[in-house]
Amino acid sequence: MTMRAGIVGFRGYSGMELQRILAAHPRVTPILLEHRSDGSAPALPIGHTGPERIACTPDAIVGAGIQVVFLATPPEVSMEQAPALLARGVRVIDLSGAFRLKTVERYKHWYKEEHHQEKLLAEAVYGLPEFYRAQIPQARLLSNPGCYPTAANLAIRPLVSAGVVDRAAGVVCDAKSGVSGAGRKPSLKTSYCEVTENFSAYSVLDHRHVPEVLMNSGLEEKEFSFTAQLLPIDRGILETVYFRAKGIGEAEDLLRVYIDAYAGEPFVRLYPLGTLPDLRGVARTNYCDIGVKMDAATGRAVVVACIDNLGKGAAGQAVQNMNLMFGYPEAEGL
Amino acid sequence: MTMRAGIVGFRGYSGMELQRILAAHPRVTPILLEHRSDGSAPALPIGHTGPERIACTPDAIVGAGIQVVFLATPPEVSMEQAPALLARGVRVIDLSGAFRLKTVERYKHWYKEEHHQEKLLAEAVYGLPEFYRAQIPQARLLSNPGCYPTAANLAIRPLVSAGVVDRAAGVVCDAKSGVSGAGRKPSLKTSYCEVTENFSAYSVLDHRHVPEVLMNSGLEEKEFSFTAQLLPIDRGILETVYFRAKGIGEAEDLLRVYIDAYAGEPFVRLYPLGTLPDLRGVARTNYCDIGVKMDAATGRAVVVACIDNLGKGAAGQAVQNMNLMFGYPEAEGL
Amino acid sequence: MTMRAGIVGFRGYSGMELQRILAAHPRVTPILLEHRSDGSAPALPIGHTGPERIACTPDAIVGAGIQVVFLATPPEVSMEQAPALLARGVRVIDLSGAFRLKTVERYKHWYKEEHHQEKLLAEAVYGLPEFYRAQIPQARLLSNPGCYPTAANLAIRPLVSAGVVDRAAGVVCDAKSGVSGAGRKPSLKTSYCEVTENFSAYSVLDHRHVPEVLMNSGLEEKEFSFTAQLLPIDRGILETVYFRAKGIGEAEDLLRVYIDAYAGEPFVRLYPLGTLPDLRGVARTNYCDIGVKMDAATGRAVVVACIDNLGKGAAGQAVQNMNLMFGYPEAEGL
Amino acid sequence: MTMRAGIVGFRGYSGMELQRILAAHPRVTPILLEHRSDGSAPALPIGHTGPERIACTPDAIVGAGIQVVFLATPPEVSMEQAPALLARGVRVIDLSGAFRLKTVERYKHWYKEEHHQEKLLAEAVYGLPEFYRAQIPQARLLSNPGCYPTAANLAIRPLVSAGVVDRAAGVVCDAKSGVSGAGRKPSLKTSYCEVTENFSAYSVLDHRHVPEVLMNSGLEEKEFSFTAQLLPIDRGILETVYFRAKGIGEAEDLLRVYIDAYAGEPFVRLYPLGTLPDLRGVARTNYCDIGVKMDAATGRAVVVACIDNLGKGAAGQAVQNMNLMFGYPEAEGL
Repeated sequence: MTMRAGIVGFRGYSGMELQRILAAHPRVTPILLEHRSDGSAPALPIGHTGPERIACTPDAIVGAGIQVVFLATPPEVSMEQAPALLARGVRVIDLSGAFRLKTVERYKHWYKEEHHQEKLLAEAVYGLPEFYRAQIPQARLLSNPGCYPTAANLAIRPLVSAGVVDRAAGVVCDAKSGVSGAGRKPSLKTSYCEVTENFSAYSVLDHRHVPEVLMNSGLEEKEFSFTAQLLPIDRGILETVYFRAKGIGEAEDLLRVYIDAYAGEPFVRLYPLGTLPDLRGVARTNYCDIGVKMDAATGRAVVVACIDNLGKGAAGQAVQNMNLMFGYPEAEGL
Repeated sequence: MTMRAGIVGFRGYSGMELQRILAAHPRVTPILLEHRSDGSAPALPIGHTGPERIACTPDAIVGAGIQVVFLATPPEVSMEQAPALLARGVRVIDLSGAFRLKTVERYKHWYKEEHHQEKLLAEAVYGLPEFYRAQIPQARLLSNPGCYPTAANLAIRPLVSAGVVDRAAGVVCDAKSGVSGAGRKPSLKTSYCEVTENFSAYSVLDHRHVPEVLMNSGLEEKEFSFTAQLLPIDRGILETVYFRAKGIGEAEDLLRVYIDAYAGEPFVRLYPLGTLPDLRGVARTNYCDIGVKMDAATGRAVVVACIDNLGKGAAGQAVQNMNLMFGYPEAEGL
Repeated sequence: MTMRAGIVGFRGYSGMELQRILAAHPRVTPILLEHRSDGSAPALPIGHTGPERIACTPDAIVGAGIQVVFLATPPEVSMEQAPALLARGVRVIDLSGAFRLKTVERYKHWYKEEHHQEKLLAEAVYGLPEFYRAQIPQARLLSNPGCYPTAANLAIRPLVSAGVVDRAAGVVCDAKSGVSGAGRKPSLKTSYCEVTENFSAYSVLDHRHVPEVLMNSGLEEKEFSFTAQLLPIDRGILETVYFRAKGIGEAEDLLRVYIDAYAGEPFVRLYPLGTLPDLRGVARTNYCDIGVKMDAATGRAVVVACIDNLGKGAAGQAVQNMNLMFGYPEAEGL
Repeated sequence: MTMRAGIVGFRGYSGMELQRILAAHPRVTPILLEHRSDGSAPALPIGHTGPERIACTPDAIVGAGIQVVFLATPPEVSMEQAPALLARGVRVIDLSGAFRLKTVERYKHWYKEEHHQEKLLAEAVYGLPEFYRAQIPQARLLSNPGCYPTAANLAIRPLVSAGVVDRAAGVVCDAKSGVSGAGRKPSLKTSYCEVTENFSAYSVLDHRHVPEVLMNSGLEEKEFSFTAQLLPIDRGILETVYFRAKGIGEAEDLLRVYIDAYAGEPFVRLYPLGTLPDLRGVARTNYCDIGVKMDAATGRAVVVACIDNLGKGAAGQAVQNMNLMFGYPEAEGL
């Protein structure tokens, strides 16, 4: 018998991707939790029905035997839903930013909103399995990482840990994301005619994903310059990371840092010297692909990291976390 | 009576853009110089004829009264065509990289080819009007800057000149270009299905446009990290430049550096603090749009520069140079 | 001294295109009429100001010496604005569907709304210059044709007039439009992620542009099958028209019908047999490009017509009409 | 133990899609057959190897225990490879047009080439399972249908069989295809800058896929008008079919024709009245989605059919055929 997993926000892009992944997951039956009816569901072919739908209330969720709920919702909705579900013994995987930062002060600083679930903030486990795998199985409340920070932390933390970054010179992370990262709610910024044949930067230096990188990469804010940019594509994030290497002599040494850091990791793939990953290679997968380049003479180093923002950057990683939380094989269904 | 200007390579994207601009230029009649016949010309409507075409030979060019020839050709073709034209008294505006570097050694190092026109290398004037306007009117051989270096130099040189860059920390230039920058010759890399919904980095740290930035920006190679990346758009280059500011306290001071550097420039536009340019704003224009962001507390600074790679990055700037060479108003036809 | 022309709805795509065209028109100064402030205006570079803006009230408009107002607005807004402007002696060019149909009954049938300006409906001149050029100079209220009907009527009417259509077999018009045709108001249907890598049909057989084709092409509804479809591009309409030819023997005869119909027309371009137009050829122009194919043995015939939906399909044609209304050269500024 | 299946042309888009599908097929191990080495293979991550590769020679193929070979090759290559493989007892699924038509005359007429495998032309089974399922299990040489004809035949044949088409008025099939349908060999027509923001018709009335529709739909050439058009998307075909209905009164009757024709079919999905399929719904699937619209008063009818040209239009359908040929569940791996 399969485990029943609820999805709130199933009409959004992360929610739709969760539906897609879980529909093929051998151990899980997805249930859509109707929070509101907004008519945006696509027409279904005759004779085809989507997953079961029930009302998004704690009683209905518990009554339906749901053991875990994915919140693919804005932070303010997650902040409201999570406590009620946890109180009824339902585990929660939150894809929003509601529980990623560790203090209410930090949340207020970066999200410009009050946080009113301080205890849960402390309890939540940050679900980046490559770094926090040991803590995930016990998590009641799993906070799924942001899309930009997932790629940034996977690219940067091994460098900082290995001590190969000249921190005085700082680290630059130039990030580019597909439009689905902005969510499915219509807006002028994500309208077709505004995006196609265009490219633009936004939230330069002050994107609210920055603190997630600071908390997990080992860098301090003064050492880290981050720019988010909107690519005219549906899905995918590529981040180009620049730093000055120290203590290593050759590009091979740089690649070796990653090989050592990610030995045995099922979802981090490293590219041989002379090649680099691109967004095609990670589309509709849970992989983070990493490649490096370094000029030995000057120490200038560049790392390219690619993920699917809806895969390893959201729904894929959420399912990876669910697998760990419920003792399933980590890569099941991914 | 208008001046007659020849175009070699008129079937390529830069050549097509030259045709488009010159067709509307009040002082010039464009003539297409048939170097070979390749059948790729689009069908013309009934009764419509394109510009006049003549054979691309020095005799025919001189005979047709052509005073200037645009070479929208690969470097090896430019290297062959330029001397013959100059010898017959025809001025040359070369859009290739053939004459942009100042020594044959540097050319060989970056282009991996021998250069066999050393004297012309020395004679050629680098046609970035914002920095070398005084030398352009007398040029016999005008070397039109590369697309990436145009944006990079316009963004970086004022900073270096003003001394506001902490050079020990280095300067990062993360560059993204539309596909037309790769030319019109079919290749797998520029095929629709390989590019759409994709994004990728190439020539990391060793792009052959790098020396043009080093020669004109004031930076040394060890201080400059450059990555070229392919955007799924037709035209446009956006470069995100990162550096550590010194000697200035606020973002206003950074913007002021540009205001001072580009006062009166017709083709550099600066954006007010809090806003940034994007590629839509420069499409089909000769503008370079620049915006800045800076964190006063830490000195982290970001500059965004946008051009149309076929406009200010190629054909537009070539016509701006032609205007200066022939004493026409600089912005005529642009 | 230039004529002052007002634009209502200048933030929409047709309004933005009107701004672009009129900014370069030698006889006109565009004035933006602020109907509401919605903050969606893009940032302007330092020192650059857009066109003059005044309040969109009849008093302000008359006071500013404006002689003609372009209404790039939804039908209900046009229905409200037009009478007030006409009453004050200001001529009106309406780009909406408010005044294109000739009876209130027909309007209600296709637009599902009441029409409350019956007299103006009768007075309005349908501004398709190729067919109604004689009536346009005197128009007080000019109703600019819809984008789909412009291409459809230019493709079909000459065929019906020449009697070369087997009307019993009917005429099919398979139409494809870029997304800007749906307007700039954000909606899920026009969001980037819904449109890219997709293609879909809508309003099959009952699009509200159908009656404009019936009124001007000579076809009856039972003879005309029309499907609108959404292309993943910014701008452009291509319509593929199918019919059974009668009374002509060869493709040359079919092409001849168009050559005869459009002799001397500045904005209709015909393609030689063996070639067909595409959307690139008409982008950012006021042209309608037409090409034909016919199988002589069976009479199966296909006509391909291309326009820019914001050019000949909206703003371009509106300026062409303005030129005719004010006695300027018809192609001025286009 | 799994069955070993070879792929010739694995670097093309159909071959890549075959690799993708077969890699996840539980009963098959794909083997890449190296016909030539062209260096276009993408870089693989460290530690990842693609499928096994062997030389594309009959000896090597037989020696490797391969039971079936997919030819994702041009017709001339298929015509050469198929006989040699069949002679060695290897079954062949050909994705090219080499064996789709039934006579050498017809082949020469539409493909403008001689056919020199007349016997195989007669033997080949046309692999459209919805119509020829009974003949597929015994096939030695399976000819996989063209992408356009798959959608056209699935849309049209039930109408003709049910006698609801007014054949005197003819049937129009306006087809639009993504760029991958043109293959992976670089060409100007499929270059990014030529395709993006463009749309164009080609092979109007004389596309070489037309005879496949005539052979399988029940229509005669004089009754069938077909236009192929290039969509600026990677993958997907949407065909809009127009006809005059006879003998049925309502749209429900039209939909009923399809419901009756496709009862129990796993890969044809029908849409409820009032809704239509789009390309997003079939991307990366083996489905053909069909929706209808009809004006009861006049009999004008429109059918919209969608497939993924690399799925049901090529590799997906080829695997469906393989499943039938080898007695596997028809939908296995799809």
